[in-house]
Amino acid sequence: MGDRPEIRAGEVALGHDPGDTPDAGITFIGRIRSPWSRGDCPKNIGRARETGQGARIELAPEYAQALTGLSVGQPILLQYWMDRARRDLVMQAPRHAEGPRGTFALRSPNRPNPVSVSTVVITALDPEAATIDIDAIDCFDHTPVVDIKPWLETVDAPPA
Amino acid sequence: MGDRPEIRAGEVALGHDPGDTPDAGITFIGRIRSPWSRGDCPKNIGRARETGQGARIELAPEYAQALTGLSVGQPILLQYWMDRARRDLVMQAPRHAEGPRGTFALRSPNRPNPVSVSTVVITALDPEAATIDIDAIDCFDHTPVVDIKPWLETVDAPPA
Repeated sequence: MGDRPEIRAGEVALGHDPGDTPDAGITFIGRIRSPWSRGDCPKNIGRARETGQGARIELAPEYAQALTGLSVGQPILLQYWMDRARRDLVMQAPRHAEGPRGTFALRSPNRPNPVSVSTVVITALDPEAATIDIDAIDCFDHTPVVDIKPWLETVDAPPA
Repeated sequence: MGDRPEIRAGEVALGHDPGDTPDAGITFIGRIRSPWSRGDCPKNIGRARETGQGARIELAPEYAQALTGLSVGQPILLQYWMDRARRDLVMQAPRHAEGPRGTFALRSPNRPNPVSVSTVVITALDPEAATIDIDAIDCFDHTPVVDIKPWLETVDAPPA
């Protein structure tokens, strides 16, 4: 964790790294190919969409068949692993917020299990190459992919 | 994986278990206390809501402060670990579907990384006890918790 973010005023850390004592293992099923790197990555997916630049999910070939049934135009939940995050913060002071807030009240990548979730739209599918093009994403190029699921209003929208 | 589901007609498995070769570690931050066990668990969160029975998230005490800033009535994304799932299926034939479909086109708990996501509503908060009551959930009692995030329309609803 050589380049992990420094602690700011008002932030609180656990005193240990939750990643050091895992209860279960994640396997990376692919990588996100995005236009972004440190310094030019949009702050959120809204800003990423405004750039007009899409991204590509490149899955490991063994998962190609697992795309069967997905369609262009469909929204999906994309879960990905923020491998540069720090996992020990319980209170954080992001620059955009007025004061420190709890990690579970923030969408910061820094969290005990850095699995980010975004709702994105499929713009192209190549099942043979095991790739999915999506409308936008706000993470660095080569970010590991954890899962892809169909977005379902009955599960993913708050109840009326 | 002694009690993992059997393979049905039309299902396709990888031939190895992705959980055997982890790239990163998940730490369980707490447990979901639900009314459900094998045999009486609702098939989806809509059915769970119809029962009128809520659930409780019990976090490890060290994460209590991380709840700061969450509010009753707020929708959250709850990520949890389906520890009884099988991780090697790329095609699945659920009873409700007409034919086999790819794992990434289904919300089945059986997937390479069994991290489920549901949007639920906070009905009560006890920061000292590190508990969150929620309106409903469709998983077994004692399911491990991976993460809690605020649900944000700009990130979690499909773009207009």
